[in-house]
Amino acid sequence: MRRAIATVCLSGMLREKLQAAAAARFDGVEIFENDLLQFPGSAAEVRRIAEDLNLSIDLFQPFRDFDAADPAQLARNLARAERKFDLMAELGTTMLLVCSSVQPDALGDADALAEQFARLAELAGRRGMFVAYEALAWGTRVNRFAQAWEVVRRVDHPHLGLALDSFHTLSVRDDPAPIAQLPGQKIFFVQLADAPWVNTDVLTHSRHYRCYPGQGEFDVTGFTRAVVDAGYAGPLSLEIFNDEFRSAPARANAVDAMRSLLWLEEQVRHHGGTPPVAKVPLFDPPAVPPLQGWSFVEFAVDPATGARLADWLQRTGFACIGRHRSKDVALYGQGALRLVLNLEADSAARSHFDLHGPSVCALALATPDAPAALARAEALLCPRVASRIGQQELTMPGVRAPDGSLLYFCAPPVDGRHPFEADFVLDEAALAEAPLGAAARIDHVVSVVPPGQVEPWLLFQRAVLGLAAERSVVLHDPYGVIRSRELESADRAVRWSVTVSERDNTSSARAVAQFHGAGVEQIAVQVPDLVAAARALQARGAPLLPVPANYYDDLQARFGLDDALLAELQSLGILYDREAGGGELLQLYLAPFDERFHFELIERRGGYQGYGAPNAPVRLAAMALWREQA
Amino acid sequence: MRRAIATVCLSGMLREKLQAAAAARFDGVEIFENDLLQFPGSAAEVRRIAEDLNLSIDLFQPFRDFDAADPAQLARNLARAERKFDLMAELGTTMLLVCSSVQPDALGDADALAEQFARLAELAGRRGMFVAYEALAWGTRVNRFAQAWEVVRRVDHPHLGLALDSFHTLSVRDDPAPIAQLPGQKIFFVQLADAPWVNTDVLTHSRHYRCYPGQGEFDVTGFTRAVVDAGYAGPLSLEIFNDEFRSAPARANAVDAMRSLLWLEEQVRHHGGTPPVAKVPLFDPPAVPPLQGWSFVEFAVDPATGARLADWLQRTGFACIGRHRSKDVALYGQGALRLVLNLEADSAARSHFDLHGPSVCALALATPDAPAALARAEALLCPRVASRIGQQELTMPGVRAPDGSLLYFCAPPVDGRHPFEADFVLDEAALAEAPLGAAARIDHVVSVVPPGQVEPWLLFQRAVLGLAAERSVVLHDPYGVIRSRELESADRAVRWSVTVSERDNTSSARAVAQFHGAGVEQIAVQVPDLVAAARALQARGAPLLPVPANYYDDLQARFGLDDALLAELQSLGILYDREAGGGELLQLYLAPFDERFHFELIERRGGYQGYGAPNAPVRLAAMALWREQA
Repeated sequence: MRRAIATVCLSGMLREKLQAAAAARFDGVEIFENDLLQFPGSAAEVRRIAEDLNLSIDLFQPFRDFDAADPAQLARNLARAERKFDLMAELGTTMLLVCSSVQPDALGDADALAEQFARLAELAGRRGMFVAYEALAWGTRVNRFAQAWEVVRRVDHPHLGLALDSFHTLSVRDDPAPIAQLPGQKIFFVQLADAPWVNTDVLTHSRHYRCYPGQGEFDVTGFTRAVVDAGYAGPLSLEIFNDEFRSAPARANAVDAMRSLLWLEEQVRHHGGTPPVAKVPLFDPPAVPPLQGWSFVEFAVDPATGARLADWLQRTGFACIGRHRSKDVALYGQGALRLVLNLEADSAARSHFDLHGPSVCALALATPDAPAALARAEALLCPRVASRIGQQELTMPGVRAPDGSLLYFCAPPVDGRHPFEADFVLDEAALAEAPLGAAARIDHVVSVVPPGQVEPWLLFQRAVLGLAAERSVVLHDPYGVIRSRELESADRAVRWSVTVSERDNTSSARAVAQFHGAGVEQIAVQVPDLVAAARALQARGAPLLPVPANYYDDLQARFGLDDALLAELQSLGILYDREAGGGELLQLYLAPFDERFHFELIERRGGYQGYGAPNAPVRLAAMALWREQA
Repeated sequence: MRRAIATVCLSGMLREKLQAAAAARFDGVEIFENDLLQFPGSAAEVRRIAEDLNLSIDLFQPFRDFDAADPAQLARNLARAERKFDLMAELGTTMLLVCSSVQPDALGDADALAEQFARLAELAGRRGMFVAYEALAWGTRVNRFAQAWEVVRRVDHPHLGLALDSFHTLSVRDDPAPIAQLPGQKIFFVQLADAPWVNTDVLTHSRHYRCYPGQGEFDVTGFTRAVVDAGYAGPLSLEIFNDEFRSAPARANAVDAMRSLLWLEEQVRHHGGTPPVAKVPLFDPPAVPPLQGWSFVEFAVDPATGARLADWLQRTGFACIGRHRSKDVALYGQGALRLVLNLEADSAARSHFDLHGPSVCALALATPDAPAALARAEALLCPRVASRIGQQELTMPGVRAPDGSLLYFCAPPVDGRHPFEADFVLDEAALAEAPLGAAARIDHVVSVVPPGQVEPWLLFQRAVLGLAAERSVVLHDPYGVIRSRELESADRAVRWSVTVSERDNTSSARAVAQFHGAGVEQIAVQVPDLVAAARALQARGAPLLPVPANYYDDLQARFGLDDALLAELQSLGILYDREAGGGELLQLYLAPFDERFHFELIERRGGYQGYGAPNAPVRLAAMALWREQA
């Protein structure tokens, strides 16, 4: 379908917005009136800029409060429309969005409205213009699409049609299904927006919380499918009012916008099990790859930090099990866990190190069809990464994640051995030990992102990888609030949380500020027996995070644990939680490496599914104490 | 009254919190359980720290979900209470806050509750402990103080009383008046919190939006008066859950907390017109000073920027009208407007310049009793400023504002001449000209503050100066959202807005980031005839901010202005707005000085009371364009 974006979605001045939309390969734009008012040139100049960028101007908006009980006011409104038609002619667009009135004296009677809209349609027709009438969710009298349709139907004029907006329908939990029965050619324009469900009024919800489809919780797919089923063949246009987007880099944000529409078209294609009889083709990328877990975590280091990290890893039970055949890269492992230390001088890892210091520069996911996973990511506008390949070495398909780190797709292990190990000269003997247990696997990874970057990440993880945002939790660091979104694949083989902190003093915010963006801060390893693993690490001198005794006193009061278990947990610094269903979680934190990243070891018993959020304040305070004393 | 603060209000680890509370001269604290769990030492150690700081521990909290339908659960809860009494004994406190249950099976029947609470009271009594029962606004069955009181009344045990919290009563619009009829000695504890009215659920409201009394919109004064009238003589204790406070500097935040309680006690004293018959004295500072407008604005400059600023001011119609008798300070003026350029090497102004660059370092308010204004500010914990005084010069009472700039109190002008001018050698001839009009006066000042600093500013302006926060508006800069709080004195002689921007790209955020905090960014001068003033400034070569032509096209469509007026406004770059009541505003913006501050000239016609918010997007875009081209 044609893809458009409203200029209000993007930050900056009008010219920058148009350039960003064109760079993201949009077909057209909606010109938001405020953007035009601020533009220091004529409407004709805007038209030329758009033409040069190969962008059509699909809509001019909004025209507010047209209908009026007072005939003099109606006459003024028609005169106002005339002036806007003049402007549109200069701008080179023919479609005007008229939204339902929010005035106290707005009309509600369909006949009376039809009479006034007939006059407007007549006027538009004489000028070769078209009016798309939209029911705002907070319109005084007209606030459902069915009401606007009733007016359009009665007027029955070729220059008056309907404008539909997913937000106005879904935010008030109106049913979009009847849209499929409308005559498609009378739907003049379709705007799309998603949003999270927030407990607030609909106007605040609309003005501050809209986001791109795939970033929120609305059923935008169902809405769009109804529009497609009606036979609508016009543009799908994004109209997002979002405080973050207003200050986001316009070009990156426009790419997100396009990714969102492409993903949405794919969803619409598969919605309800039967393909739609669409008048225009819908985007059809390779399917979401089946993900079988994390293959490895790669660290960017230089020789000095590499040596310290190697020591840190060895105390955590990892041995150096291989050297890359052609690069200055070491492989660490135990059981099936793999970590890569990349010291290669001319590499993406070194670029990452130079900017961010010792850090996770790449993650790798296991999937049986890595080329297909890459093809999907590329189809969804992720930049492909090309690495130098030595003779007879494997190519490893990979893309850039939103923060510039890399995400690789690897073939899954066979008999406990990873195919990518073929690129390494291995030391099999070093793999003999596995203090965390042979069955240890990465349970989840936590990435810290700067404020404003949560939505881009959600879309990347959802669209490219098919992860779903399961929970949103607030964590209390002693120095402020951290918000965490927990994303998971359908079978939970891959869990990848994203956390953000607004203020400068939390551990997350410090990491973002001190290291130009933080990236992965936690690698959580699921172990079969945490008490055994903790003892093994204690024996190796691993830097376990001390837990205050008061925590155990309260644990006893809350859960009535038996004294022996409690003593054991306390002696090892293991945190404990129990879900209502009886599932139990044991957690052990290792002290962070250079305030950058740390390991968590967890044991899930009896189907515990969360991440131990009730323990977060104690853990974050323990981290803060560690930092103070370091 | 005794003043206390809950540790949850303050950022950091428990020791820092206690130190901050003591430094702000609190009498006691509530220990929030999570703070104790995170403390890496025993409860006895916390007790010693508090004793060393001369702080009493007035409460331990919260104890949740006590009552239970299941007798086994009740037994477990009583056992849990025993453990907490042990802890409290070690901590050296005797008061436990028990909040109403939020479990699905919480009891609602007063008799059943009374039976269970009688057991708890009995247990507490045997240990020398006291239980304060609080109705959470979101308690499953018990969610109003009257219900909790009914339980306390039936149990009638000396160790069971009521805990009241202004948030739980006011957020659900429950009437606090009946509290005045309760027996004061059965009110065991009183917690206070204010909040803005936000459209969200009560739990979200409570957990993220609470603020100190005076920073929000609740009638905390009425609530507290009812408590005092009941005969309550215990501590007034602040309990604030606020995302900003969790990361605010603890010591400054604790001072704000104390300022808020002092202000509140004064309000309670005057509430309803009759003084309360309080069992304990309420704070009684000097009254809010009558404010008669702004006396002067003082700029910190060095010789180079001072010369540029002088030139900039001269083009705006200001002449150098005097030199300070003993300091390197110049006085600029026209009509009754006064600006001070401070180049003195060893001064607060120079400190300000060194940190912030050319900037407004002081503001001065006109009030007939400046010493009383100073006394009030000092009573409310504002640091007094001592300036060096030359022979026979006037002392000018002043205090530090929250951002470290100075606020002076001056005697008002007599016959258009300011008493403080006595310290200057004046050039009367230079005052002859007044291009902005002899009646020009400062209409309002706008200060930019960093994120997290709005609440401290609101409290400062409200408590110290008696300003009220009239409106909260969202302004759209092309690069993001700016939020503005408009504060005014009762008669609007003084208007002082505070704006904040979360993200880095708006004009406000850039100013904060580039100049280590921004301070005053706009000085709005009200003139009798803006068209005449604009012409005069144009003739002098003042840097007027260009306004895009498209703006006037839309103005015509919206307001139907007559063509001559429209042409005149456009030729001068004057913005226009009209309120529903017919009041009109004319606005003219001058280009900013070094992206730091700018003048706005406004003419209010027919009682226009706002600030022209509808024009903000165009003005902010014009500023951005100016910046790009500069």
